[in-house]
Amino acid sequence: MNDLKIISKASNSHARTARLKTAHGFVDTPVFMPVGTRGTVKGLLPETIKQTGTKVVLANTYHMLIRPGVEAVETLGGLHKLMAWDGPILTDSGGYQVFSLSTINRIGEDGVEFASHIDGVKIYLDAKIATRVQNRLGADIIMCFDECTPFPCEADKLKKAVDRTVRWARLCKQTHNNDKQLLFGIVQGGIDQELRKACSKELIEMDFDGYAIGGLSVGEGHQNMIKTVEFTAPLLPENKPRYLMGVGMPADIIAAIRAGIDMFDCVLPTRNGRNGFAFTNNGPLKLRNSENTQQTKPVDENCQCYCCQNFSRGAIRHFFNVGEMLGPILLSIHNISYFQQLLEKTKETINNDTFDEWAKKTIENDKYKTTES
Amino acid sequence: MNDLKIISKASNSHARTARLKTAHGFVDTPVFMPVGTRGTVKGLLPETIKQTGTKVVLANTYHMLIRPGVEAVETLGGLHKLMAWDGPILTDSGGYQVFSLSTINRIGEDGVEFASHIDGVKIYLDAKIATRVQNRLGADIIMCFDECTPFPCEADKLKKAVDRTVRWARLCKQTHNNDKQLLFGIVQGGIDQELRKACSKELIEMDFDGYAIGGLSVGEGHQNMIKTVEFTAPLLPENKPRYLMGVGMPADIIAAIRAGIDMFDCVLPTRNGRNGFAFTNNGPLKLRNSENTQQTKPVDENCQCYCCQNFSRGAIRHFFNVGEMLGPILLSIHNISYFQQLLEKTKETINNDTFDEWAKKTIENDKYKTTES
Repeated sequence: MNDLKIISKASNSHARTARLKTAHGFVDTPVFMPVGTRGTVKGLLPETIKQTGTKVVLANTYHMLIRPGVEAVETLGGLHKLMAWDGPILTDSGGYQVFSLSTINRIGEDGVEFASHIDGVKIYLDAKIATRVQNRLGADIIMCFDECTPFPCEADKLKKAVDRTVRWARLCKQTHNNDKQLLFGIVQGGIDQELRKACSKELIEMDFDGYAIGGLSVGEGHQNMIKTVEFTAPLLPENKPRYLMGVGMPADIIAAIRAGIDMFDCVLPTRNGRNGFAFTNNGPLKLRNSENTQQTKPVDENCQCYCCQNFSRGAIRHFFNVGEMLGPILLSIHNISYFQQLLEKTKETINNDTFDEWAKKTIENDKYKTTES
Repeated sequence: MNDLKIISKASNSHARTARLKTAHGFVDTPVFMPVGTRGTVKGLLPETIKQTGTKVVLANTYHMLIRPGVEAVETLGGLHKLMAWDGPILTDSGGYQVFSLSTINRIGEDGVEFASHIDGVKIYLDAKIATRVQNRLGADIIMCFDECTPFPCEADKLKKAVDRTVRWARLCKQTHNNDKQLLFGIVQGGIDQELRKACSKELIEMDFDGYAIGGLSVGEGHQNMIKTVEFTAPLLPENKPRYLMGVGMPADIIAAIRAGIDMFDCVLPTRNGRNGFAFTNNGPLKLRNSENTQQTKPVDENCQCYCCQNFSRGAIRHFFNVGEMLGPILLSIHNISYFQQLLEKTKETINNDTFDEWAKKTIENDKYKTTES
């Protein structure tokens, strides 16, 4: 019913272009989703986000649950209205943040009790609650509540986390009660192929609208990550979207698309942008460097974004140097645009079947570190 | 040559609408100019500033001189290019900031030696330097270097400041060497009518492209300010623009327009916006207040700005509450739009000759404090 409509497939890899239907419009994949953690992609108006070529944004359930709270979001008309974003939105389940940001009080068989990272207030989250909360937030794509393990992780702990993730996924599926929302299952299992395989099998039997690969980009390094993605992605149904959570650097994304991944989210373009770091076709650029003080060139001469069409490196360097918001804003625009232009390129090359060659060359010539490489 | 083209005059006051020609387009007056101190109206892209109805922006010579420095601005293509603003720009002379922000080392007959408020570096500014710097920054309207006195001010000190301001104005006029820029003289004299009269007379003889009233809104209160403006404005040539510097609250602006003022700049809409304070037709609104948490109404239901057309008070309250840039950005958009809509209203009522009545009623019903009243 909500199958992914495949448009093109690469000849010598698992890369594909496709179209996914959501309640707020179609999404052409491969797609990169900028992160709007607390209901805003930091510093950018919705009209500005659209100008970067962005079609889908992500918001974090954990953060919205803590402030302003699900009741406030609901009263304010749901996440789309609050964010003034009329395109598709994806919310994660909160699982990742519970395990990475909060102080865990207790992980039980049903869920997790944790202390808010803001004020220490005790909050309990389990599969049913995480699903109901996401039903109420109203994103177009919602995620199962999962247990995200660190790297490295003891075999026993990893196994238990996968068991819980599978059991919780079943509860999420049963609880989910908003047929305008697509519910994705999340495959866990660290870099253990047997666990990834078992988890995939169980989730596929539950028949989700899409499947994510979670628990990567947590310290295992590029090679381990890609190896796991290359192993896991083909196990997932071809006619469903595949989403690699929290990834990543340009070469990570290209390698994952080659393995058959359709969807990505990452804070890198915005977080790095706020720190004065730009992605360009000539490699990384640090705008704070004094060599940019009188530099009239744009961040990237081949870029069509609002930042590069209007501002010199010297101007941006000045804004960072004096602490003006415009610096982070301009580099967030540029970096998101850079990622969107990269994803456009992958679609274009998959559609004309030059992807495999282009991907190989691009990864070889990559000027960025891959995730934790 | 650069005369102001008068369009309409109010029947029972000095209010008028007019059109001023600058190197970057016409300016319809009365006009409100948002402040872009360091080359950016804080948090707003140029395209966003335009959407608020803004035609002219102001930048501060003092700040640009300290960072990034006039040489960098020049190399980067001038202020318009640095700011990516293709409309008119006005720069002040730096005089006000030297006297209000920096540590003055010495006021001499020729100029001022002061310590930068950033790093304490000693800088010398005088009439010739301030003019040459502004010639190089390249704004469309530049200001004479003046001595701005505090309130209250001893008679002797005030007199000396006026004498210096007149002498410096002559030097600025002589030094000014860019015929694409309009040079405005600044009338000083505190609230002393004789000094204001003498200063106006001397400046008018020098024949500037426009005349500003400076040294107000420094603690003298609304009544003193308006009384001084009402006395001084009619002394200035009718066919030249009149600019009241650093003013002000809505009622201040309306009262000054009634006295014959054409141009205004003020940090209030942006500074208050960043602090969570909105100007609305129903009076002040503090967005941080918890009563807004679940409020679905926009900031101002009668406002057509991007903020009010897209965001609820509850959403904006959330952004302020979690410290997201979007809160200050949205209220800056709204507040500037509020001021621009107010100025549009003054033009409309002057043009159909209902201004005097509208101004009286609007000032009577004013819900904001006037400047330091």
